[in-house]
Amino acid sequence: MIPAMSLTLSDDRYGAAGIRVLRVLRRGDRHEVRDLEVDIALEGDFRATHLTGDNRAILPADSMKNAVYALAGRHGGGEVEEFALALTHHFVLEHDPVTAATVTVREHRWARISISGRPHDHAFSRGGDERRVARVRRTGEGVVVEAGIEALPLLKTKQAGFRGFLHDRYTTLPETGDRLLATVLESNWRYGWPEVPFGLHWQQVRQVILGTFAEHDSRSVQHTLYAMAQAALEQCPPIAEIRFRLAHRRHEPADLSAFGIENDNEVFVLAAEGEGVIEAVVRREDIWI
Amino acid sequence: MIPAMSLTLSDDRYGAAGIRVLRVLRRGDRHEVRDLEVDIALEGDFRATHLTGDNRAILPADSMKNAVYALAGRHGGGEVEEFALALTHHFVLEHDPVTAATVTVREHRWARISISGRPHDHAFSRGGDERRVARVRRTGEGVVVEAGIEALPLLKTKQAGFRGFLHDRYTTLPETGDRLLATVLESNWRYGWPEVPFGLHWQQVRQVILGTFAEHDSRSVQHTLYAMAQAALEQCPPIAEIRFRLAHRRHEPADLSAFGIENDNEVFVLAAEGEGVIEAVVRREDIWI
Amino acid sequence: MIPAMSLTLSDDRYGAAGIRVLRVLRRGDRHEVRDLEVDIALEGDFRATHLTGDNRAILPADSMKNAVYALAGRHGGGEVEEFALALTHHFVLEHDPVTAATVTVREHRWARISISGRPHDHAFSRGGDERRVARVRRTGEGVVVEAGIEALPLLKTKQAGFRGFLHDRYTTLPETGDRLLATVLESNWRYGWPEVPFGLHWQQVRQVILGTFAEHDSRSVQHTLYAMAQAALEQCPPIAEIRFRLAHRRHEPADLSAFGIENDNEVFVLAAEGEGVIEAVVRREDIWI
Amino acid sequence: MIPAMSLTLSDDRYGAAGIRVLRVLRRGDRHEVRDLEVDIALEGDFRATHLTGDNRAILPADSMKNAVYALAGRHGGGEVEEFALALTHHFVLEHDPVTAATVTVREHRWARISISGRPHDHAFSRGGDERRVARVRRTGEGVVVEAGIEALPLLKTKQAGFRGFLHDRYTTLPETGDRLLATVLESNWRYGWPEVPFGLHWQQVRQVILGTFAEHDSRSVQHTLYAMAQAALEQCPPIAEIRFRLAHRRHEPADLSAFGIENDNEVFVLAAEGEGVIEAVVRREDIWI
Repeated sequence: MIPAMSLTLSDDRYGAAGIRVLRVLRRGDRHEVRDLEVDIALEGDFRATHLTGDNRAILPADSMKNAVYALAGRHGGGEVEEFALALTHHFVLEHDPVTAATVTVREHRWARISISGRPHDHAFSRGGDERRVARVRRTGEGVVVEAGIEALPLLKTKQAGFRGFLHDRYTTLPETGDRLLATVLESNWRYGWPEVPFGLHWQQVRQVILGTFAEHDSRSVQHTLYAMAQAALEQCPPIAEIRFRLAHRRHEPADLSAFGIENDNEVFVLAAEGEGVIEAVVRREDIWI
Repeated sequence: MIPAMSLTLSDDRYGAAGIRVLRVLRRGDRHEVRDLEVDIALEGDFRATHLTGDNRAILPADSMKNAVYALAGRHGGGEVEEFALALTHHFVLEHDPVTAATVTVREHRWARISISGRPHDHAFSRGGDERRVARVRRTGEGVVVEAGIEALPLLKTKQAGFRGFLHDRYTTLPETGDRLLATVLESNWRYGWPEVPFGLHWQQVRQVILGTFAEHDSRSVQHTLYAMAQAALEQCPPIAEIRFRLAHRRHEPADLSAFGIENDNEVFVLAAEGEGVIEAVVRREDIWI
Repeated sequence: MIPAMSLTLSDDRYGAAGIRVLRVLRRGDRHEVRDLEVDIALEGDFRATHLTGDNRAILPADSMKNAVYALAGRHGGGEVEEFALALTHHFVLEHDPVTAATVTVREHRWARISISGRPHDHAFSRGGDERRVARVRRTGEGVVVEAGIEALPLLKTKQAGFRGFLHDRYTTLPETGDRLLATVLESNWRYGWPEVPFGLHWQQVRQVILGTFAEHDSRSVQHTLYAMAQAALEQCPPIAEIRFRLAHRRHEPADLSAFGIENDNEVFVLAAEGEGVIEAVVRREDIWI
Repeated sequence: MIPAMSLTLSDDRYGAAGIRVLRVLRRGDRHEVRDLEVDIALEGDFRATHLTGDNRAILPADSMKNAVYALAGRHGGGEVEEFALALTHHFVLEHDPVTAATVTVREHRWARISISGRPHDHAFSRGGDERRVARVRRTGEGVVVEAGIEALPLLKTKQAGFRGFLHDRYTTLPETGDRLLATVLESNWRYGWPEVPFGLHWQQVRQVILGTFAEHDSRSVQHTLYAMAQAALEQCPPIAEIRFRLAHRRHEPADLSAFGIENDNEVFVLAAEGEGVIEAVVRREDIWI
């Protein structure tokens, strides 16, 4: 050991990830379900446990799990943002050593089974990997609420091109005015204030994103990303900023020329280069005027 | 080496798994997509390659992939069963050493994006992990067609119980007349003859399965499995037999009594024993009388 | 409903999959760990639960989990085959309705951490996805023991070719006498009698498989498969038959000619056709003479 | 559209993830393999493509893939840090619009197959999910090199406790001086300067981490995290800071008391609360004195 060496601890946090809870709401014969997954990260002065193993500031992950279960009764049946708000309240306000808490609640969505066009009261099928997500960060100063969408695969077969791009010595990709555009979308947006009708806005933003994706005349993935961001900010005033991460899964027409078969953009295969990743944040500047 | 030892080769087959192709159908402005995944297994007398490395009977997996791409133009836009039929035709009839071929086609389903309630012409979002599957086995004698569903998560919050079961020295599970029933369903059914309106029947069987799951008064997973099988066989005459595999994801009410909180079947957690697996085949006996 | 329809139930079984248990053996200061995953499938006459919901023949999956935990103390510290034998004994002999049980035990393997070349007494790191597997099926008539390996990725960069194969109209793959051979191996072998030194044989068969893969002059995946099977049967007399499933991950040299770069089998990429799948069983015929 | 709204684009980047390449080094009969996975993210002024679809600053992900393949010949056979340095050099220095590039290279590690204790020249088996990782960020001002380990599962069965922790109203976890400690480790460290013997240091840091994990008398996960960080910084002077993320997979003794079986820390099951997550950065302050 070098006696002169001095070490600094920073960015330390602890918590739990992947706490699952299924909340059933019984409104007479009509049931609803919330299939939730909770991540928790706590911040504070935790040097003692690092340096000496003094755990007086450390809440077991097991107690966090119990808190999720216990609070799911009162708060787990509403919007995911509200559950995340309640959980951060619990961790920051009731635990002295905790100065900040970030709680993420993901909802795995179930759809009612339809029988002869009539949605069933208490039977459901799961609608896919797409998740609604809420993330709340609370400190002594205040609270920030984000909402979002994760793992939403999108595809359009028209109104997409990619031309006039940068060429270098390794560029062989042909330019095209008509390509298939496939992406897996992730988006998070921050609300300018912590109390909005969360469910309504989430549905609205999701609809704006989907509609813009469908109708935009795409010249690049970035071009469509920005159009979606702009539309969301324009149509949903409580949003202060929005972030996108688009995993571009480039497809190309299968080359069937060796077999004397013409392929007029009918048969596509996933290109083999890994996936493209396009990220950006768009923020409005004119709020609070 | 023991000179007297003689070895027998059996159950050998070769092929490819996971060949992906995306087929776009352009009917004027209205596009459709088929997102397909193909598995191929060929049978025949392949002893020479095993024993001596003589590969004259071995078609490269790469040629299988090319065949999938090449045939996707003409056959990939219809029902998955038809594509599988065409592929087995290609492999069995055009390759002397191949005496039997089994082709599985899985469809990952995309739904049209809706804008103001109107389905869009050429933009789609993916509907989940659920897959429609077709499996065709063709030999010199004929062809067998199966259709099915994979990876469909189902949940009901009422009309399910589990009582009067076998107890042994390790049984601690309480009996209940009101449990949450969550399962991931896989089902395959064999058609009694190889030409039926595949799309129509697949939709019908799927609807019968979902409807029966929702409305059945379940006393066990098996009880519901059999009810679904019976309903499918009754309502869809071309089906000769149907197989189910239900992965039971048992949930139990979170025990909140230590915190003075009553949990009246509102907050559930996934039980930790791994998942239950229930399988059976149900066959009709009266066909062709 | 067709009144005349009569239905037959068959191939029904139930059980549990993915029960995890970690068994620690404490031999003084020297500890050992067995990280086990158990699947159970029971057979018998279970028609009553299917047809009427009478569950008297149905043991809860929860009781199976408890049995795994309870028996892990006495049996979980030995060889995985012995634990599977003990579990099938429990299910078949102590439960009247159960006429057959199949128990699969997978071991996730941990290696001791080495410090200055000395293996540590009680600290471990995990060695990969490769699993040792035992599968025991017990009926009233007797017991069959299989052992195996799952998820073992293998690679050789020399002594592998693929030539003289079948060509069809879609064949474009070039022949080669020097290819990179990458595969993920799964193998199961059945012992001719149920009591052998399981640990010793598993190690021996694994070593024979690896050694043959490395040293064989491969003309096809099948050619190497058969060589491994033959070597295992020759060198391990208790094995009655052995099955392989090789997932062939074909790599090809990256085509760098457009950039004026020669690629003399130095830079490889995974080919995009899905993976090849090669399966076979090899059985000895001369046993018990 | 609200005319007064002005939008700001920030944190935008694009690139590719998951580009795989396998580099074979042929040193006479002795071969080596590098199984690499590359992620690339480029930064610069990309507003034009977002706002108008002008793509002149956008290099296709396909060209990035080609660059990885092309540079793998000269640079892919050395240390992963060197390959990442070469790739960032290519992207920043040869592309005007690119002002910064971050390249991550992950190595999936293969071990030589041993035959009778002798490592084979050209046959390999894969050693697990653990990955060696290098991350290089290059801007006009300079370059930062990080190395790391991902997905390394560790386990110790002694010398671990957790006592004296914070209790709240939901705490039921018992204190213990003897628990099983299982974690999946991820660590990244930043070198104080960009040219060090990367392979040597990576091996050394990995060994220090494993050795400290094994020998530390752990009072909490944090306590062991800090001990590993301290040891790495002390024993490897070129490291300026080190980050850890430990996913704690808490195990607890199975409760067998209902069956009259004593469980003296022999049979463990994974606790069901999701996994604990503990993160921190430790930095030395005395460097460059």
